[in-house]
Amino acid sequence: MVAVERNRSGERIGRDIATLSGPDYTLSSEAIRRYAYTPVYRNTLDFFTRALEELGFEVYEDPVGTLVARNRPRGEPVFGIGSHCDSNRNGGRYDGTMGVVTALEVCRLNAERGLDLPLQLISFLEEEGSGFGQMLLGSRITAQRVTEEELKERFLAIDDGRSFWEHARDAGYEPERWRESSHILDDLTGWIELHIEQARVLQDTGNRIGIVTAIAGYVHADVVVHGRGDHAGATPMDFRLDPGLVAAECILELERLARAAGKGTVGTVGELEVHPSLINVVPERVRFSLDIRGVDEDAFRGVARDIAAFARDAAGKRGMTAEYRERQTLPATPLDERIVAALEAAARETGEPFMSMPSGAAHDTMCVADRVPSAMVFVPCKDGISHSPLEDADPADAGLAAGIILNAIRALH
Amino acid sequence: MVAVERNRSGERIGRDIATLSGPDYTLSSEAIRRYAYTPVYRNTLDFFTRALEELGFEVYEDPVGTLVARNRPRGEPVFGIGSHCDSNRNGGRYDGTMGVVTALEVCRLNAERGLDLPLQLISFLEEEGSGFGQMLLGSRITAQRVTEEELKERFLAIDDGRSFWEHARDAGYEPERWRESSHILDDLTGWIELHIEQARVLQDTGNRIGIVTAIAGYVHADVVVHGRGDHAGATPMDFRLDPGLVAAECILELERLARAAGKGTVGTVGELEVHPSLINVVPERVRFSLDIRGVDEDAFRGVARDIAAFARDAAGKRGMTAEYRERQTLPATPLDERIVAALEAAARETGEPFMSMPSGAAHDTMCVADRVPSAMVFVPCKDGISHSPLEDADPADAGLAAGIILNAIRALH
Repeated sequence: MVAVERNRSGERIGRDIATLSGPDYTLSSEAIRRYAYTPVYRNTLDFFTRALEELGFEVYEDPVGTLVARNRPRGEPVFGIGSHCDSNRNGGRYDGTMGVVTALEVCRLNAERGLDLPLQLISFLEEEGSGFGQMLLGSRITAQRVTEEELKERFLAIDDGRSFWEHARDAGYEPERWRESSHILDDLTGWIELHIEQARVLQDTGNRIGIVTAIAGYVHADVVVHGRGDHAGATPMDFRLDPGLVAAECILELERLARAAGKGTVGTVGELEVHPSLINVVPERVRFSLDIRGVDEDAFRGVARDIAAFARDAAGKRGMTAEYRERQTLPATPLDERIVAALEAAARETGEPFMSMPSGAAHDTMCVADRVPSAMVFVPCKDGISHSPLEDADPADAGLAAGIILNAIRALH
Repeated sequence: MVAVERNRSGERIGRDIATLSGPDYTLSSEAIRRYAYTPVYRNTLDFFTRALEELGFEVYEDPVGTLVARNRPRGEPVFGIGSHCDSNRNGGRYDGTMGVVTALEVCRLNAERGLDLPLQLISFLEEEGSGFGQMLLGSRITAQRVTEEELKERFLAIDDGRSFWEHARDAGYEPERWRESSHILDDLTGWIELHIEQARVLQDTGNRIGIVTAIAGYVHADVVVHGRGDHAGATPMDFRLDPGLVAAECILELERLARAAGKGTVGTVGELEVHPSLINVVPERVRFSLDIRGVDEDAFRGVARDIAAFARDAAGKRGMTAEYRERQTLPATPLDERIVAALEAAARETGEPFMSMPSGAAHDTMCVADRVPSAMVFVPCKDGISHSPLEDADPADAGLAAGIILNAIRALH
């Protein structure tokens, strides 16, 4: 194993995170708000480009703006590392960005130690969907899990309603060549992504490192319940078709179904919109979102099927109708046993507490793992808080992870 | 009884309603949108002023803009009729306006038949709260159920955040004299307001006229449930503090409580806001509104008390907290038995189907009835739809009501 000065790695990672939290790198002064094709996103890519070019890497951006940096000519095998550097609209410093910064640190260590491991760093765009409302958009483009029609017509900017296609063009990219984005995975012999855990398991179990064995799949959907808007004072209870009551029943049933399914299955109603949203009007229509996940395909897909059926039944029983519309679905992703084993061995060597665990959150690695043997490393984040300016993580843990990742790649070679 | 040519009254009422639905009288081409101190509201007051001056009425506006018209000198007793002519922001043609138009028709009939009954028409402002978010604002000012501080500091325009006080001044009124608004009730020997029912009871029971025996009181409040925002994928079900679940329990409990209270008690959650409202984030906070009404004080206030306690308990059981904040409360209003009896007698005389009923909706008459013996007349509206551009009512029913009101006032003299 290569001994790594962990403190030094932690310090460098902390310094880079601090830089990327400055005013040049976020649209908001109260949170990290960074998404594709904004000036602050451009600055972030430039930051990584400068740092990687200093290490002798060739740096380029693919036709939609994915950052790629490699220390071998194109066509030669390389090991992939990286994550994403966009944020939630009201996000924190660590989600995604810590992974790219740690990958950069792996490249630095590789140079400093003279290991000359063949590496390729990737920073995917739009993992959070803050620009166009589409999670994992960059890595889905790389994996060709989108259609040209979606990129041209359907994926519209939250800010101005214009298409992904137009925004990519305005930023100087060539969206018409989006299919070539798949080539950035062509030379990869493996892939490791570091990410903050975004939950409390590592913190609450006292572990500094999580080696991820599988990533949960998910169903994202909406349920719209159609009732009838009526005067809230003048309409007796028996004369109402109040869709809010059906929504309430569904919210509670989703909790019951997710718990009953077990195996780490979770279900969340994160968005709920009442129309017309007036205190003195019985709602006419209610829309709510569903986020249902798990590493067990049958379990989480079963919950999605059951809540869709329940919503229709519950609406029908009250004389209303409910529609279930799937937005997006991704299968669960088992990770590569050989890379997982190499990471576990490298982690064990450090003497620091670590554990193997599934990932409940989705990650770009889901879109890489079909083509490239992949794994992930988690580090704790405080109280599991993520997607929030309160997000906090310890760069020292990422420094520890950088050494583990470096040693795992070395062992795999 | 005075025989009235009902068709002619219906036609005149229909014509006035059509006029007041034209582009000079609404801010929106897709709905009636009319509220105090806008040019279209000014045009509406001018319309009534012209029509009433033609009938020989003295017309003036009180210090905040309430329209008053009378056919006797100030100081002499008169019988009051009227309603309001502002609308919901996305409102229909009939709510309020039909009442003022029908009152105008009563004044016309009074003149045509040479009855010379002493009459005073009032059109209150801001019944719907579209300008400043305050229901019954005009009649509450008349009843002195507001404070100067509220008018100056707390009642802010939805459009620009400036105060009621400033807007009233800009419109040429003298808000500093708002207490004098109470004098518009000084000479009234009685008061009758016509309004569309805003529910389905008249339609579904085949009645053309409703004689209102009492108006429901209400509690308007908000409940805020504080949870913890967490990643929707990475946070196991047992690690969550999801306030949406508490809100769902409250929505269903409110329905149960309102039904159990009986006596026409109703409870509605019309507004529900989830923060931050992202599909992949467990909500951090949920706010929902409560609208609880009834003609039985103990029943509806009991529901408000019970749901507030339930919300705190339900939140506590899940490790969260809930706050209950009352926005506004109005007691139930019994109406005057003598005027109700006179209206019932006049309605019976027509041979048309009518019924006596409570009003579930709030009306300006609630603010008049403390000082003046009062009653109300309802006419059906299609499918009970109100507060919507789809609102529909038959001017022929209002024509029938105009004759009933005229005869009731005559009988009371």
